Amino acid sequence: MTELDIYLLHPIGVVRSELQDRENAPKQGFEGAPDAWLEIYPAFMDALDGITPNSEVVVLTWFHQASRDVLKVHPRRDSNKPFAGVFATRSPDRPNPIGLHRVRIIEIDKQHGIKVHPLEALDGTPIIDIKPVLAKSQEE
Amino acid sequence: MTELDIYLLHPIGVVRSELQDRENAPKQGFEGAPDAWLEIYPAFMDALDGITPNSEVVVLTWFHQASRDVLKVHPRRDSNKPFAGVFATRSPDRPNPIGLHRVRIIEIDKQHGIKVHPLEALDGTPIIDIKPVLAKSQEE
Repeated sequence: MTELDIYLLHPIGVVRSELQDRENAPKQGFEGAPDAWLEIYPAFMDALDGITPNSEVVVLTWFHQASRDVLKVHPRRDSNKPFAGVFATRSPDRPNPIGLHRVRIIEIDKQHGIKVHPLEALDGTPIIDIKPVLAKSQEE
Repeated sequence: MTELDIYLLHPIGVVRSELQDRENAPKQGFEGAPDAWLEIYPAFMDALDGITPNSEVVVLTWFHQASRDVLKVHPRRDSNKPFAGVFATRSPDRPNPIGLHRVRIIEIDKQHGIKVHPLEALDGTPIIDIKPVLAKSQEE
């Protein structure tokens, strides 16, 4: 493995949400984000088997509007806060702009996908993975 | 955004660990995984500023040995367990084989990177992102 390797991500679905632009979206799910639908592409529907309503999952997204050449930011875009390295923040601007979102499953619909709450990702955001929350470790 | 889009991941570093093969590695960090070093490539060192010893972070890795065309697995590779969709499991075999690892920072060395505990990722695993744990939500 070297610095020059490249890996290809293929989206498994897309976020359908009332949130249309970055300026008006909450920065984290627990800051008042709405319900959203995870539209899962048909080729990946079988991979959802076993996900149940009311369970918690971590959704991984691709921040398609992010700047990937940013290494330092003012946390929460607050210019009063000193610059910090992006790996010490949750800024969407980062070398590999992957979002982590812990959400609860509200509804599963084999035609439309999965309804979740709360999700701060914008409408149209690509989804790249879904994982169960591991209760034992309280992680993710 | 469509199903045909592709996104490119560039590794920011690589795991240095005593764990050399998948069969002998713990499945989760809390199952007895060892300390490991996150070797961060020089181009990304500035993005670490603000990460402090003893804090908790989520490390995102790329499971370079995974099978990406697998949609269902026996959870924990236990053939007594019924097949489940990979999105309902933490299997490394999945369409986009990204690993999430919640670890504690033990040591930061501007030359060698970051020492963390515990990490179940194999030696040589590419690192694609590091994020702080959000205490408020207990997520990630």
